[in-house]
Amino acid sequence: MKIDLVNTLREKNPIAFNISNFVTVQDVANGINALGASPIMSEEKNEAEAMVKMANSVTINLGAFTEQQLTQIDTVMTFANQYQKPIVVDPVAVGAVQYRLERCNELLAQKQVNVIRGNAGEIAALAGVEWHAKGIDAGEGAGDLVEIAKKLANKYNCTVVESGKTDIITNGDAVVKVFNESDLFKLHVGSGDMLSSTIGCFVGVEDDYFEAAQTAVVVFDVAGEVVAKAMDKPLAGSFGPQLIDELHLIDTKTVEKYANFE
Amino acid sequence: MKIDLVNTLREKNPIAFNISNFVTVQDVANGINALGASPIMSEEKNEAEAMVKMANSVTINLGAFTEQQLTQIDTVMTFANQYQKPIVVDPVAVGAVQYRLERCNELLAQKQVNVIRGNAGEIAALAGVEWHAKGIDAGEGAGDLVEIAKKLANKYNCTVVESGKTDIITNGDAVVKVFNESDLFKLHVGSGDMLSSTIGCFVGVEDDYFEAAQTAVVVFDVAGEVVAKAMDKPLAGSFGPQLIDELHLIDTKTVEKYANFE
Amino acid sequence: MKIDLVNTLREKNPIAFNISNFVTVQDVANGINALGASPIMSEEKNEAEAMVKMANSVTINLGAFTEQQLTQIDTVMTFANQYQKPIVVDPVAVGAVQYRLERCNELLAQKQVNVIRGNAGEIAALAGVEWHAKGIDAGEGAGDLVEIAKKLANKYNCTVVESGKTDIITNGDAVVKVFNESDLFKLHVGSGDMLSSTIGCFVGVEDDYFEAAQTAVVVFDVAGEVVAKAMDKPLAGSFGPQLIDELHLIDTKTVEKYANFE
Repeated sequence: MKIDLVNTLREKNPIAFNISNFVTVQDVANGINALGASPIMSEEKNEAEAMVKMANSVTINLGAFTEQQLTQIDTVMTFANQYQKPIVVDPVAVGAVQYRLERCNELLAQKQVNVIRGNAGEIAALAGVEWHAKGIDAGEGAGDLVEIAKKLANKYNCTVVESGKTDIITNGDAVVKVFNESDLFKLHVGSGDMLSSTIGCFVGVEDDYFEAAQTAVVVFDVAGEVVAKAMDKPLAGSFGPQLIDELHLIDTKTVEKYANFE
Repeated sequence: MKIDLVNTLREKNPIAFNISNFVTVQDVANGINALGASPIMSEEKNEAEAMVKMANSVTINLGAFTEQQLTQIDTVMTFANQYQKPIVVDPVAVGAVQYRLERCNELLAQKQVNVIRGNAGEIAALAGVEWHAKGIDAGEGAGDLVEIAKKLANKYNCTVVESGKTDIITNGDAVVKVFNESDLFKLHVGSGDMLSSTIGCFVGVEDDYFEAAQTAVVVFDVAGEVVAKAMDKPLAGSFGPQLIDELHLIDTKTVEKYANFE
Repeated sequence: MKIDLVNTLREKNPIAFNISNFVTVQDVANGINALGASPIMSEEKNEAEAMVKMANSVTINLGAFTEQQLTQIDTVMTFANQYQKPIVVDPVAVGAVQYRLERCNELLAQKQVNVIRGNAGEIAALAGVEWHAKGIDAGEGAGDLVEIAKKLANKYNCTVVESGKTDIITNGDAVVKVFNESDLFKLHVGSGDMLSSTIGCFVGVEDDYFEAAQTAVVVFDVAGEVVAKAMDKPLAGSFGPQLIDELHLIDTKTVEKYANFE
């Protein structure tokens, strides 16, 4: 695993264009910025091409889109494909809401995306595997988590990051499992969105997106674990700012010390 | 008062659908999540029915809506009535802005809502009582706060929560007053919105909405009081994350110890 | 410099109407509120006149507008001119995105604004001086920062606040430089937006907008410096809530003690 990409990211300071979820956008922007990239956000179609051209990557969060924003999202993805900028997609709640699943399937069928990051319920829904999601939460299912992730990665020829107690990263063939975890991630609403945007930062500096995704997951998970370990009780609210603190402070030495993957 | 509803909420983990105010949505989502419910947010009409069906309650915050969002809000409320999901309404600034008052009156005339939560200026405006609100703040008036709240509760056959130094909860007949307070609530912009969404969580697990509203107010107020008491000076910014910390940590023992109501 | 305006602001508690950037709106609202003003936000054209009439000032953040919101922004600015309410404009990323520059130039040509607050790249773009901005960041240029700010101030007959390592405030003739600084401002995405809205608070209580802008910058910069100095390492995430803490706690004595300007 290329842990050293953390340093590359800070040297290159990539511009991370994010179509964000209005619920968590502030944390996402601050997380990206603290880590060492430059976040830009926009909901306007007329500046889509300019934004994509200046950006090193595009992260599309489907957490709270309207029919109107979908037109902008479509435009942004088209330009990203045209200018060969990597796309990370976070398919929030596609496991629970049919409307979202349909719109997401349409986008994935028409554009080439590079990384999809979701929980088990979301990944299963996109892979066409039966699952019982609960709202924005992962829910429970009986399938083999690794096989579901691989199925989706092969379906769209991309890297899939399936978040959960163990994070599974696969390009459809090779599989990396990251065991760093903290219950506090689930207590903080923006955690998943921040992880997706962190992957967006790393694919902006590393053309091997499978590698980039691995580093992003390990860095993010270790940062959360370091914060959680320093607490003597679970502080659901303070975890947010402290996670952003750690995304700035974390270095390769800390990541290497705590990283737990295979 | 059914303090034990806190435990019920955490066992049942209700899905709280929120039409939120973009100013405070992140705090609202994290507060709900920390307390033990699952927040979902949406601004898209096409997924309104799916969202309402999966939700245990709907909280409508009128803090920053556009004409367009009003169509979605109308649709969501219609489905909530159809599927008999309880509705909590937060009529932000209806005491100060005529346009908001008119739109809110229209919604309340057409739909059955179960709880209205606002400050004195907002409750007075909806009850048709003269008052002098100041922007989003309560302002000052000469009316009897309890009578105004009862008048509104009887007008729409619902529970009314009138926030202020003393919080007044009434079903139009019985009245409960909660004296737990902290000046820090006024220093944190999201406090009112978070209280409304907290009520939304409790009406999702208790069919007696008057009871549910009481528990929500006491739990929320005690949480804020506990945080404020632990500070040696008023930390307007840190209060936000720490209030979310406490919404997760708080238990029935703490609520019972500090609850101050009649 | 009228440091005492801090007390005036707290006595008068002005209503600060903000057309905000959805990325940072929560921090902006909490910052304004903690400082001692009352924030109101709206995206709806139909309540523009009521909002402007009740407000003491209008702050227009162009950080994330859509074509549709531009209609509302235009309406709000027209009413602000009509009712003679001071306008502060934050031209986010006009140095990087041609579409934003064009829309901003149109607004500035048609309305009278009172303060423009931006980084060097943004101010240079509006002044028509060549510069190399980077996304939302200032970028680098070879021009004389003071001359660029004066040029823009004279172009639109307004006060210009050019943020950077040194903050430059000019009415086109006189120039004040504020040297208070902290690297943490750049690590917190909302810093610039919060500064603009802080200026919005002060122009709501002081008709000499050049004076009001100076006080706003010094108060805001000193608050950030005080927070940063109390940290033993740069906490990019905790800086946000702590800056809001300090905006509430700061008094004229603290500002006078640390203020560093000429």
